[in-house]
Amino acid sequence: MPQASTPQAALSAVLEHIGKEQDRYVSDLQEFVRIPSVSADPKHKEDVRAAAEWLMGRLEQAGMENVTLVETSGHPGIVADHLHAGPDAPTLLVYGHYDTQPAEKSDGWVHEPFEGALEGGRIWGRGSTDDKGQLICHINAAEAWLKSGGGLPINLKMVFEGEEEVGSFHFAEILDKTGDRLRADLLIVSDSPMRGEDKPAITYSLRGLSYFFVDVDGPGSDLHSGIFGGTVWNPAEALAHMLATCKDPKSGKVLIDGFYDDVVEPTAEERERLKEVSDPDAVFLKNTGASALFGEEGWTPTERTGLRPTFEVNGIRAGYIGEGSKTVIPRTAHAKVSCRLVADQDPHRVKELVATHLKKVAPEGVRVSVELHNLGHPVRADPDHPMFVAVEKALVDTFDNRPALLPEGGSIPAVADMQKRLGVVPILVGFGHKDENMHAPEESFRLKNLFRGTEAAARIYGEIAAQKRG
Amino acid sequence: MPQASTPQAALSAVLEHIGKEQDRYVSDLQEFVRIPSVSADPKHKEDVRAAAEWLMGRLEQAGMENVTLVETSGHPGIVADHLHAGPDAPTLLVYGHYDTQPAEKSDGWVHEPFEGALEGGRIWGRGSTDDKGQLICHINAAEAWLKSGGGLPINLKMVFEGEEEVGSFHFAEILDKTGDRLRADLLIVSDSPMRGEDKPAITYSLRGLSYFFVDVDGPGSDLHSGIFGGTVWNPAEALAHMLATCKDPKSGKVLIDGFYDDVVEPTAEERERLKEVSDPDAVFLKNTGASALFGEEGWTPTERTGLRPTFEVNGIRAGYIGEGSKTVIPRTAHAKVSCRLVADQDPHRVKELVATHLKKVAPEGVRVSVELHNLGHPVRADPDHPMFVAVEKALVDTFDNRPALLPEGGSIPAVADMQKRLGVVPILVGFGHKDENMHAPEESFRLKNLFRGTEAAARIYGEIAAQKRG
Repeated sequence: MPQASTPQAALSAVLEHIGKEQDRYVSDLQEFVRIPSVSADPKHKEDVRAAAEWLMGRLEQAGMENVTLVETSGHPGIVADHLHAGPDAPTLLVYGHYDTQPAEKSDGWVHEPFEGALEGGRIWGRGSTDDKGQLICHINAAEAWLKSGGGLPINLKMVFEGEEEVGSFHFAEILDKTGDRLRADLLIVSDSPMRGEDKPAITYSLRGLSYFFVDVDGPGSDLHSGIFGGTVWNPAEALAHMLATCKDPKSGKVLIDGFYDDVVEPTAEERERLKEVSDPDAVFLKNTGASALFGEEGWTPTERTGLRPTFEVNGIRAGYIGEGSKTVIPRTAHAKVSCRLVADQDPHRVKELVATHLKKVAPEGVRVSVELHNLGHPVRADPDHPMFVAVEKALVDTFDNRPALLPEGGSIPAVADMQKRLGVVPILVGFGHKDENMHAPEESFRLKNLFRGTEAAARIYGEIAAQKRG
Repeated sequence: MPQASTPQAALSAVLEHIGKEQDRYVSDLQEFVRIPSVSADPKHKEDVRAAAEWLMGRLEQAGMENVTLVETSGHPGIVADHLHAGPDAPTLLVYGHYDTQPAEKSDGWVHEPFEGALEGGRIWGRGSTDDKGQLICHINAAEAWLKSGGGLPINLKMVFEGEEEVGSFHFAEILDKTGDRLRADLLIVSDSPMRGEDKPAITYSLRGLSYFFVDVDGPGSDLHSGIFGGTVWNPAEALAHMLATCKDPKSGKVLIDGFYDDVVEPTAEERERLKEVSDPDAVFLKNTGASALFGEEGWTPTERTGLRPTFEVNGIRAGYIGEGSKTVIPRTAHAKVSCRLVADQDPHRVKELVATHLKKVAPEGVRVSVELHNLGHPVRADPDHPMFVAVEKALVDTFDNRPALLPEGGSIPAVADMQKRLGVVPILVGFGHKDENMHAPEESFRLKNLFRGTEAAARIYGEIAAQKRG
């Protein structure tokens, strides 16, 4: 492949290529979104595989090499690379996920969740922003370098998994099976929101997750509330009482013994920097649609989502929940509960702390079990690392705007695994937007960010190569 | 119709008639149980009507007069009478219901729910004890008097409804449409359990019911718990906190202001009498299958079910309740809550007290609505009324055992309506048994109680006639 005369000339050719391919980028993403790769739902198992296969085709087409499907006990991973930039060039690993959250039209979608409709400058559909639209920016960027830039200026590796939305249960199997093949200097993940309409963001930390199922068993069977009402603990009420002890309704603090023990307190400098880019309450009120905000006392909403752990009930179910009424004392009650974690909290330890607490406060007459279902370790990188500076420059050049340096509230369990096992510096550069309804009905992705995301990825590859050259 | 020479001779002939008709009583009840008259389920609407029509045929066959189907906005009522005992004889109204709770084989039934299988001395099927098997005892008894006793010794009226299991929503329409036709001195209802295998019971009070739906609305849509966790009140947690304030987890007392204001405290004599027939804790532990009992401090379990009001969560639902996990902060949370009431609590007032309480304790950032779905007034009669003495004698003669005088924990909203509008003294004499699984899978009815219930009803008609004669 002929090398362009200068890095600048090569980049210009790459950017020109990207400008010409926009229509194809859109139709590609529509195809991808139309595959309902819902990892949580067994009935979509074949669809998840179809998305993996679609992705392999796109990687081959882009010119990536050694495109491999890695089987796991769950949904497969996809690995590809292009390693011709020489031993002195940096090696970048790009991570993304091709699975999606569940979506049913009846959940409140206006657009069909798996049609990829184009409207108002966006593509609408489950997975459009999380993460299909974002991961495809990297494939587009690699393709542009390979086809028009005289080859990639870095050694590029990519890994895409199909279980991020169900907790990356088998991601470790992908790492086990690929061994050193994914070793790299730097990890780039594009699966997070920008800071604003034209304001990019670099994320230097991710919250972890400890997700568990709480089961409360009471009487031997459902009971008639007339005949037996007043004689036994009602498991639904026991669960309500137990959950109500987990968080102070005034201060918002989690009341589980030891919960905050391992939390790394942010520095004054970190809080100051974050203050500059923090949203005012009015923005949180608008984005949540709530009539008032609530959270841990002493921290701003931005700090609460980025720097502080949480305790949330994600689902609760007991007794009769159909139409009409039934006078029943339920036999059991169930909750799905998760804690978002910050460095250096451990998901296993947090689950144990919660289980100990719930068992302590459970009334006599009910049995409680707490089962860990899903976990992710928190991630935290040093934003003064030189690679952050390189990425920052690429973003300034793309968006004409300085990126915000942010702690992120979400969790990407696989990132913690890769940081630990591959020795990579994790940098999260997202092209989504908070109003794009990831995990909610009417998910969408701005088409302009499909294009700018592709440009940013291409520029990042150039800048980290330049950074390494000195 | 020729009168028998003495009341005693007439009764002997009636009892002899009953003894001969047992096989037909069983096959009749099987026919009745085979009609799946599930009032809650719209797809059984025609079955409910078929049961009403079957009942009319049976009443005609028994010799009852003016058998009338009374249309309502819901399922119809059936009214019949036989009024030839003269103006000095007492007038008795018998109430029952021909509708049933829902039942699906998959709920845990061994027998088919609507086949009326005979096994182990019982008939098995939904509605067998609640209330088809019990109401038919009265039709059998009336028939025996009419065919073999020289005519009924009392003026007898009967009313059967098809909506008891869904809260007797349209029973008032039956009373509206029949006007004075159902006026009577005494009301007998057979829709309750006996005290033991051979120990009959007379129920002198019923709990009322106030059943309402609680809806808690929080953010404008479901939120991603990573991006927004820590910024708003989670409606599932808000609901848990709110419900946890409604009952003291130590004393079991309902903590809603004014809840106990209208409760008629039982006399020391009433508590003493109840003590004699109270079940020990071990029986409640066995019947509920719970590992410990719980309820309002200072009262025995029997008192708590009979004399005290309750607050129970019958159902609760929020967020993601499917398989696996979803990291969502739900937009809404819902509970179905009911209070069992005792005299003189008013279901509307109790609903208002609960709504006021929940709105007071609801955190800022959520909206609460409480909607009354279902209600029944409590019923309380004076067990020293002479008609109770007459019924007691009939039961002693049938079961060779003194009946227990009991307060009942369940609710029959129609009984309160009849007490108020028809001026009747309500007496509840049931032939069911607590282990016959009303409202649960594997409902059954003892055949021996079909026969003894018929005999008891026949004797009751004789005794109340004798009581009136002096």
